[in-house]
Amino acid sequence: MESKMKGKVFIVGAGPGDPKLITIKAVEAIKSADIVLFDRLVSKEIIGMIPKKAERVYVGRDVGDDYKHQDVTNELMVKYAKTKNVVRLKGGDPFIFGRGGEEAEFLRAHKVKYEIIPGITSGIGSAEYSGIPLTHRDYASSVVFVTGHEDAKKTQGAVNWKKLAKSVDTIVIMMGLSRLDIISRNLISGGLDKNTPVAVIQNGTTDKHKMIKGDLTNIARKVSESKIKPPSIIIIGKVVSLSDKIGWRK
Amino acid sequence: MESKMKGKVFIVGAGPGDPKLITIKAVEAIKSADIVLFDRLVSKEIIGMIPKKAERVYVGRDVGDDYKHQDVTNELMVKYAKTKNVVRLKGGDPFIFGRGGEEAEFLRAHKVKYEIIPGITSGIGSAEYSGIPLTHRDYASSVVFVTGHEDAKKTQGAVNWKKLAKSVDTIVIMMGLSRLDIISRNLISGGLDKNTPVAVIQNGTTDKHKMIKGDLTNIARKVSESKIKPPSIIIIGKVVSLSDKIGWRK
Repeated sequence: MESKMKGKVFIVGAGPGDPKLITIKAVEAIKSADIVLFDRLVSKEIIGMIPKKAERVYVGRDVGDDYKHQDVTNELMVKYAKTKNVVRLKGGDPFIFGRGGEEAEFLRAHKVKYEIIPGITSGIGSAEYSGIPLTHRDYASSVVFVTGHEDAKKTQGAVNWKKLAKSVDTIVIMMGLSRLDIISRNLISGGLDKNTPVAVIQNGTTDKHKMIKGDLTNIARKVSESKIKPPSIIIIGKVVSLSDKIGWRK
Repeated sequence: MESKMKGKVFIVGAGPGDPKLITIKAVEAIKSADIVLFDRLVSKEIIGMIPKKAERVYVGRDVGDDYKHQDVTNELMVKYAKTKNVVRLKGGDPFIFGRGGEEAEFLRAHKVKYEIIPGITSGIGSAEYSGIPLTHRDYASSVVFVTGHEDAKKTQGAVNWKKLAKSVDTIVIMMGLSRLDIISRNLISGGLDKNTPVAVIQNGTTDKHKMIKGDLTNIARKVSESKIKPPSIIIIGKVVSLSDKIGWRK
C-alpha cells in the first residue's frame, strides 16, 4: 500500500480486565508505541505498561457523545500516524463490539497503515472466570455474542430477541444491563424456558469480579436490587448452572 | 476446597496460531509447569516455551477416537496432579469448543484444583487477521460461534441451521468444512440470501494463513477445488465483504 504516513496504527485489544490476560503481541505493540490512545475500560496496570517516553491520550466515551467521540478518535489516529507509531488500545477485543472495523475503515480511507491485535473479549473472559463454559458437549453447540444496546441509526441487522430465543444455546449480551427486563420478556415470548438460568457479571476477571444469578423471570429484579452496574456481561443458557459445579475462583 | 492433591491443573488456551497471540498469564503457567499435556493445534513456538525440566505429553486426538482420547486425557490430568503442577494446553480457547468445561467437571469430581486461562479463539483471531469485523455498527449486531461437527450422542441442543439463518448477523462455524455444502443449503432454505458472502480460513493468524471467499451457492465447490483442509474457520455474513476493504496482511 502506498502511504505518505511514516507511522502506523496498531488497533489493540487489551483483554477483559485481568491485566495478565493481554497477549504478548499487544504488550510488544504498547512497548514500542510513541503515543497511546486508550479507552475507559483499559486497566491501570496495562496503562502502566506504556513507556514513559510515550504520550498517553484518553479517548473514553465521556469525551463526547457516541458519534462525536468516535469522530475525534478517528481524526486523532490519522493525525498522529503522520509521524508516530500509534497504539489504539481498547478493552476486550477490537472486533467484538469494539468498533475496530469502523476505525480500520477510516484509517484505510486515509491511507494510514494499521494492524489489528486481538484481545480476549470480556464475554469469554468473564464466563471462564465464573466457571461457565459457553459451549459444552452436552448442553451447548452454539454461543451468540449480541449487543443489548443497539445503534439508534441502524436500519438493518437489528436484534430479533424472539427469533434468537430458540435458535442458539448460549446467549452472551454485552451492554444490555439497562434493557435486561425487556430482553428477558422477549426471550420468554420467543419460546425460551422462563426457568433458563442467567448470570450477570460485573468487572469480570478482575479482583472486583462480581456475579449475580437468577432466571429469566427474576434476574432483572435481582440486578436492580443489587449494586451491579454497567458495564456488565449477561449470560443466558443451561451452561450457566454449571458454574455452581465448576466455578474455581474464591 | 479440600484436596489431597499437591498439584494443580491449569487449563490454558494457547490462542489461534500466531504464537504471540498467547496471554502473559498463559506463558507464566507454562513456565511454571512440571508437566504439559498438549493438543495437536498448539504451535511449535509455544511448545518451545515449555521449560526443559518439564515433561511434555502429547494428547492430540489421534491418540484414540474422540471419546477414548478425552478419557485418557482426563485420567492423565488427575494422575499427574497428585504430585505436579500440570498445564493442559489447548489451541484457541478452552471454553469455546475446547472441552474445557468437561475437563473442569472431571477435575472437580476428582477433587483436583484447577484454574482456567482463556485464549484467543481461532474464530476471532482468524477473522481479525483477515480484516473481517465480526460485529459492525452498520452490518452486524450479533455473532454466533457454532460447531459444524456435532456430537453424535447429543440429544439436546442440536444446531438448527434453518432457524439460525435469520436470527443472527454473522455466523462463525468451527469444524464445519466437510459439511459446508449441506450447511449452506440449510441456511439458504432457512431464508439467508444465497449471495451472502462466505470466507473459509485455514491456518488463521499463522504464516500459512489462507483464505477463500465465495457465497453460499459456490463456497462448497470452491473449497473442494482448493487445497483448503480442516481445521478451518467458516465465516458467513455481510461483514465478510469488508475484508476486501480493510484486510491488512500481505
